[in-house]
Amino acid sequence: MRAGADLAAIRERKPLVHQITNYVVMNETANATLSLGALPVMAHAVEEVEEMASVAGALVLNIGTLSDRWIEAMLLAARSANVAGVPVVLDPVGVGATRLRTETAKRILDEADIAVVRGNAAEVATLAGREAEIRGVESIGAADSGAELAKVAASAIGCVASVTGAVDHVSDGVRTIAVANGDALLGTVSGTGCMSTAITGCFLAVASTPLEAAAEALVAFGVAGEDAAIEAKGPGSFHVALYDALYNLDPATLDSRAKVEG
Amino acid sequence: MRAGADLAAIRERKPLVHQITNYVVMNETANATLSLGALPVMAHAVEEVEEMASVAGALVLNIGTLSDRWIEAMLLAARSANVAGVPVVLDPVGVGATRLRTETAKRILDEADIAVVRGNAAEVATLAGREAEIRGVESIGAADSGAELAKVAASAIGCVASVTGAVDHVSDGVRTIAVANGDALLGTVSGTGCMSTAITGCFLAVASTPLEAAAEALVAFGVAGEDAAIEAKGPGSFHVALYDALYNLDPATLDSRAKVEG
Amino acid sequence: MRAGADLAAIRERKPLVHQITNYVVMNETANATLSLGALPVMAHAVEEVEEMASVAGALVLNIGTLSDRWIEAMLLAARSANVAGVPVVLDPVGVGATRLRTETAKRILDEADIAVVRGNAAEVATLAGREAEIRGVESIGAADSGAELAKVAASAIGCVASVTGAVDHVSDGVRTIAVANGDALLGTVSGTGCMSTAITGCFLAVASTPLEAAAEALVAFGVAGEDAAIEAKGPGSFHVALYDALYNLDPATLDSRAKVEG
Repeated sequence: MRAGADLAAIRERKPLVHQITNYVVMNETANATLSLGALPVMAHAVEEVEEMASVAGALVLNIGTLSDRWIEAMLLAARSANVAGVPVVLDPVGVGATRLRTETAKRILDEADIAVVRGNAAEVATLAGREAEIRGVESIGAADSGAELAKVAASAIGCVASVTGAVDHVSDGVRTIAVANGDALLGTVSGTGCMSTAITGCFLAVASTPLEAAAEALVAFGVAGEDAAIEAKGPGSFHVALYDALYNLDPATLDSRAKVEG
Repeated sequence: MRAGADLAAIRERKPLVHQITNYVVMNETANATLSLGALPVMAHAVEEVEEMASVAGALVLNIGTLSDRWIEAMLLAARSANVAGVPVVLDPVGVGATRLRTETAKRILDEADIAVVRGNAAEVATLAGREAEIRGVESIGAADSGAELAKVAASAIGCVASVTGAVDHVSDGVRTIAVANGDALLGTVSGTGCMSTAITGCFLAVASTPLEAAAEALVAFGVAGEDAAIEAKGPGSFHVALYDALYNLDPATLDSRAKVEG
Repeated sequence: MRAGADLAAIRERKPLVHQITNYVVMNETANATLSLGALPVMAHAVEEVEEMASVAGALVLNIGTLSDRWIEAMLLAARSANVAGVPVVLDPVGVGATRLRTETAKRILDEADIAVVRGNAAEVATLAGREAEIRGVESIGAADSGAELAKVAASAIGCVASVTGAVDHVSDGVRTIAVANGDALLGTVSGTGCMSTAITGCFLAVASTPLEAAAEALVAFGVAGEDAAIEAKGPGSFHVALYDALYNLDPATLDSRAKVEG
């Protein structure tokens, strides 16, 4: 864990983070990426995603609002990223809620090499073949504890599993890290999960391993959430303060503020 | 009218509100829904909308940015909602401005059972076959007064008509309710009409009748608008404060703040 | 230059500004347009764009997130605008980053009559056949200075070139205007370039010439950026304050605040 040093590296190198994400949060994840210090680019046309993904520092795939051509674009981009050695993070939004989402996430995991899956407990549990309940895109519950789920899922899926919730758990199947940063207001703004995935993409572009990238991203995003909550009066003012907080994150103090175990 | 009790019910039950809406306001209607206390889900793929709509508490259709596949998805979702007994609200954005919009709204009304149509005066008047003028998606004027228009439109369209403006009017053709809550700043933010439709969806999931749901939603949204306006310096700060205000709406005082007649 | 008078004209006439733009910034450009005082409308269906563009005060084309049908819609809308005498502004987002973007922007310029191209240095340089480097959608550099680039590009492309950066340069090939308004925080919010294009559309609907429209828009947007920066704590609060500032722009003082040369 060297969240501060990797944040400083993001700000210095400004990695391009190519995002094929859902319509609902595009502006939000672009702004979270930019506030942190990386360069977002959104491109989904099958004619250009391979070209864009191959020159990116990381690729973010988010299945929040799917349709045929977007699925095709995600697969093309992921394979192009793989060939170019660009790490890929997948956000399986709403997996378990409809067959299309479950099948698409599984297909992406089958046909491409994914570095990190970042989702809520129900989404990750569904991908790992464990019991879970989801309502729309919100996790209602999973049979396993967060730590257990992250570990089991990493082995079952074959990549780093990043399970966010009141406490987040990140695992590569061997080592499991708990991240307790954050604030309850994060759950009142649409797209904060998607933002944490985008920020995972930013850290993937600079960190030593996918496990560290995933954990560092949740530390950075969680600390920003804590800062944003201080003067927030509700979801609107919290949302605005979140971008300010990401922008003002201090690399020098970030690691000392990390609430990390494991 | 039991706006406070129904708001409390929304927060307790957290109904899933499936929204097939336009690209411009997706994040805004999702956040308005979440701030109020319900669970938004956006899904538009023809492969999944029937599945999602059938398990929702309400379905919101908004034609603000149409294309072929989205129209098909709206029809599939509406029929699925009808079979499952899930109430549907339609927002006929820009009806009267282009033939595509007018024909699509009429087709949805013909082919599915819609509980509430929520629009501005020009949009609702066009659907009711009355004189009106629209510029883009903004109502320039309608021949009928708001109360008269709502009543006539409810009969002509065959569902509750919810006509928003300086004063809102909601009618089922028999009873017509005027709602005078709100603030002029609502007209300075893109998508506040769409938000009021999303919130109508939230109340449809819990209220006794579509008429009450439509009126209660406009009371809740209007009161939130009044609260948001207090410290606003313009459209930006008002927009942010609107989510805070929806989140902080007090069920215990909501009915006493309703400016309702009829 | 009569930025104040033209701003007053926008607020009085409320021109309809038809925008076919990217998914990331739709809400933002709609709100910037509305905050300034014009009426935004977003419509991209091939079935309706000709109808909508023909009655607009200006048409804004932005290629930030392309796909087949959207390209087709842009071409249809541009030709319809041309026939109706409606001025068109093109934002060539990411030109130079992928072949699809470069070819699409060139095709629009070939097949329609464009009044203004508004882009960053790398985008405009690429269209003008000059040396430049782009990372995603951010300009890394161009061989020419801003003033030289705007002038050369206007001649090469055959329309007004509006090149934004630390200092903006607008040229019709004969006269070149430098606009030094703005704030560095504009570069920290996704879509501010797209907003400046939308605002160029607003001014195109009322100004005497495309050159003046382009320069006045950058003065208005830049002054709003200066106002928004005063109390901003980062990108989030700056973004919110930007809409407030656009709304509160004073036509009576705007020209006196313009930092313009040429």
